Amino acid sequence: MKWGIIATWRMALDGVVEGSKLLRKEELSGNAIEKAIQCVENNPYYTSVGYGGLPNEQGEVELDAAYMDGDNLSIGAVAGIKDFENPISIAKDLSKNRFNIFLVGKGAEEYATSNGFKRKNMLTEESKRKWEERKKEVYRNNLTPYDGHDTVGMVALDTKGSMVSATSTSGLFMKKRGRVGDSPIPGSGFYVNSEIGGATATGLGEDLMKGCISYEVVRLMKEDYTPQQAAEMALYELHNNLEKKRGKAGAMSIVCMNNKGEWGVATNVKFSFVVSTSKIEPTVFIAYMEDGKTVYKEAEKEWVNLNIND
Amino acid sequence: MKWGIIATWRMALDGVVEGSKLLRKEELSGNAIEKAIQCVENNPYYTSVGYGGLPNEQGEVELDAAYMDGDNLSIGAVAGIKDFENPISIAKDLSKNRFNIFLVGKGAEEYATSNGFKRKNMLTEESKRKWEERKKEVYRNNLTPYDGHDTVGMVALDTKGSMVSATSTSGLFMKKRGRVGDSPIPGSGFYVNSEIGGATATGLGEDLMKGCISYEVVRLMKEDYTPQQAAEMALYELHNNLEKKRGKAGAMSIVCMNNKGEWGVATNVKFSFVVSTSKIEPTVFIAYMEDGKTVYKEAEKEWVNLNIND
Repeated sequence: MKWGIIATWRMALDGVVEGSKLLRKEELSGNAIEKAIQCVENNPYYTSVGYGGLPNEQGEVELDAAYMDGDNLSIGAVAGIKDFENPISIAKDLSKNRFNIFLVGKGAEEYATSNGFKRKNMLTEESKRKWEERKKEVYRNNLTPYDGHDTVGMVALDTKGSMVSATSTSGLFMKKRGRVGDSPIPGSGFYVNSEIGGATATGLGEDLMKGCISYEVVRLMKEDYTPQQAAEMALYELHNNLEKKRGKAGAMSIVCMNNKGEWGVATNVKFSFVVSTSKIEPTVFIAYMEDGKTVYKEAEKEWVNLNIND
Repeated sequence: MKWGIIATWRMALDGVVEGSKLLRKEELSGNAIEKAIQCVENNPYYTSVGYGGLPNEQGEVELDAAYMDGDNLSIGAVAGIKDFENPISIAKDLSKNRFNIFLVGKGAEEYATSNGFKRKNMLTEESKRKWEERKKEVYRNNLTPYDGHDTVGMVALDTKGSMVSATSTSGLFMKKRGRVGDSPIPGSGFYVNSEIGGATATGLGEDLMKGCISYEVVRLMKEDYTPQQAAEMALYELHNNLEKKRGKAGAMSIVCMNNKGEWGVATNVKFSFVVSTSKIEPTVFIAYMEDGKTVYKEAEKEWVNLNIND
């Protein structure tokens, strides 16, 4: 029985381990991906997702998340939501509706409250300390406040052939209040169609959304490119376009999987990701760009232990 | 000298007239489209855009707008913003930035305030009255509150070959607070690349975003389909996909223009749109679906005068 899950960044490892246990037991991909993303959201040591996420300029943790069901193209998304434990579950719940599937700010919080989601102060002491430090640093050295990674994004395939894609993030460290990146944006941060495959992106959301990169990767897989070909074609076309038209391209990475459980990755930076399928135990890989192509290798155990936040 | 502007719904007529005056004088497409959209936003009789827009469930007018520059793919967008006169101008201003280009709710309002945009109560007496009526009706008859059109979306080409696309809307009448439709979402509500062309969509945002329809239309024009072919291919593929996977497809319409000033339209409902180019005076057309294709004809003067809100 074929199944698989692929996720952005090393921080997804525990989640992918949990998710693959469920997929192996023939659970639905929707449940597996929700559980996997919750794992990352709940861990206070991951500073760019959920609890412990780094705050915006005002010191508030504003969270974005999205969920897409590849069987029926249903989408749910939230952006700029504060003080809820698991944004991914709110997004998944929204995807059941026909109208009002993408909610932001106060409206998203009202929906979550009236649908019984658990409130929680998501700012940890550690993240607050980092914010205070960074604020001083930016002030002193006139630094640009934007450097963080980043979003956890996943694509999962279950033994029945159903595919889902999902994302969760606290967005750019020191972002302006209300800033939305690519993560909750359909076609940019995520896209999936169970008849083809799914993709999810991470990096500078402002640049990723200029190319609808997740939609484009899925579209290329539909044209029978392998996931690896599709990921590289879409990412480097956008990268080159941005360099040509804007003089520079921000950090961009993408992972994808087709409905046979084959997967691919492309990046223009150093990028870690996690894969587990019916053929591969949960494994962290490190990818980077070399001569306009993406190469990757398994991460060493030591690296995995030392770089939990990558 | 070639130039052109195409826009969704009859309500765009005055704006298109203003915009084409500027384009004919060789003004930049960015200025022409901003002026054209402002015209629609400022008119209290258009109940789905800007001043006089119909409110959300709570009786608040929450506005969404976006702007994209086809020369450099710069994007600016706002969603769920209240009490500002011209959301399109805030979106255009945001597009100059590299980070924080898409802002929602309070954060968008703070940006607008600190960048000198004019505050205005956007709820007219007439819209408030309609909201009160509708609230009673929904309560009495258990109606679904969602029926409105809709977004003004435009694509413009100037005599230098620069293209832009932009949208503005108050969203679904009686929407939940914080609801975001396709209008501010890159690739769904709008997309443009000056080397190819641009597109903008209107209808049920929740369905339009399931297919990244504006991005797809531009992509098809890149593959040398005519604007008319690209619009119909993308729209009916999404329509059929939604019917197959979900049993139904919401209202969807799209207009597009390539960088030669040729244009196209597709719809699955009755849909009016406005075109003006170096070859055609500002003209309102009515389009509808017939045998899985889009047909359109010039609207009669009487229809134009009687249906200002279409």
